[in-house]
Amino acid sequence: MSTPIKRQVPGPVHSRVVEYNGTVYIAGITADKRDVGCKAQTEEVLKKIDEYLAMAGTNKSRLLQATVWLTDIREKEQMDAAWKPWVDPDNKPARACVESRLGTPDTRVEIMVVAAKA
Amino acid sequence: MSTPIKRQVPGPVHSRVVEYNGTVYIAGITADKRDVGCKAQTEEVLKKIDEYLAMAGTNKSRLLQATVWLTDIREKEQMDAAWKPWVDPDNKPARACVESRLGTPDTRVEIMVVAAKA
Amino acid sequence: MSTPIKRQVPGPVHSRVVEYNGTVYIAGITADKRDVGCKAQTEEVLKKIDEYLAMAGTNKSRLLQATVWLTDIREKEQMDAAWKPWVDPDNKPARACVESRLGTPDTRVEIMVVAAKA
Repeated sequence: MSTPIKRQVPGPVHSRVVEYNGTVYIAGITADKRDVGCKAQTEEVLKKIDEYLAMAGTNKSRLLQATVWLTDIREKEQMDAAWKPWVDPDNKPARACVESRLGTPDTRVEIMVVAAKA
Repeated sequence: MSTPIKRQVPGPVHSRVVEYNGTVYIAGITADKRDVGCKAQTEEVLKKIDEYLAMAGTNKSRLLQATVWLTDIREKEQMDAAWKPWVDPDNKPARACVESRLGTPDTRVEIMVVAAKA
Repeated sequence: MSTPIKRQVPGPVHSRVVEYNGTVYIAGITADKRDVGCKAQTEEVLKKIDEYLAMAGTNKSRLLQATVWLTDIREKEQMDAAWKPWVDPDNKPARACVESRLGTPDTRVEIMVVAAKA
């Protein structure tokens, strides 16, 4: 019999939270409030990621990998100004941060993470 | 002894299908027929992904994560016009969709997925 | 009790090497020496990846997935001129290669890999 997959928060194109074999895949997350700068958008994104990790019974101390896309890579410091106080200092994930235009013109940041179950 | 890795469809730089520990990694897939728009290219890409998943003895209902790159993010609706009827409505993966210039100038879309073994 | 996560080479925002459940996540790696072209930068990146894989007790023959970002996708052949002699010909990972502006203006290439424990 197949190892089960648990999916939560389904939308029209994807699930926000997918669990399989002890690993949790969260969708690329963007901010709802987009009339603010990259730092504030990142803060909202990370708050959402906390919520999605909690739905999978885990938390940011169990992050394995993060991919960060910025609309303008020159805003990396703004993103990190939100990232650094958020990330667990003893349990930082592997991360890549690159520039890509994102789904809506006023989106400054999108983050997709993979985590371990608690 | 190491847990075995199974690799299929090797090319000059990568393998298209890699299996390890119950998880299947498919390479970033693009369309061969590129004188068509984003929707038609996405349809070809998804058909190929179906074939590669089948080679690993699994299928789209077991998708965990998808990364979608579009040459022009404004074509996201075209991509989703192919994605939505394709994806298993009860088993959608986590997904991120961002803009990146791709390997050939007429490539409109590239998709890389991770899936669970059936 | 939770399956343990092992993290190595921590920096201000991430860990370079993260191991969990038999899978190794390496951060996106760029070259330190950036007054050289894409091929030479890729060679440095791949040398670093070898070192990080070794820290996790594994090696390039166990690569599962690679994501390659190029500042200019037209330099893909330059990157592959370093990649092809490096990659284990019998054990190539799944790979995607796309264009993204990267963290510093003179960075030509960034590579993030996932590997299996040996």
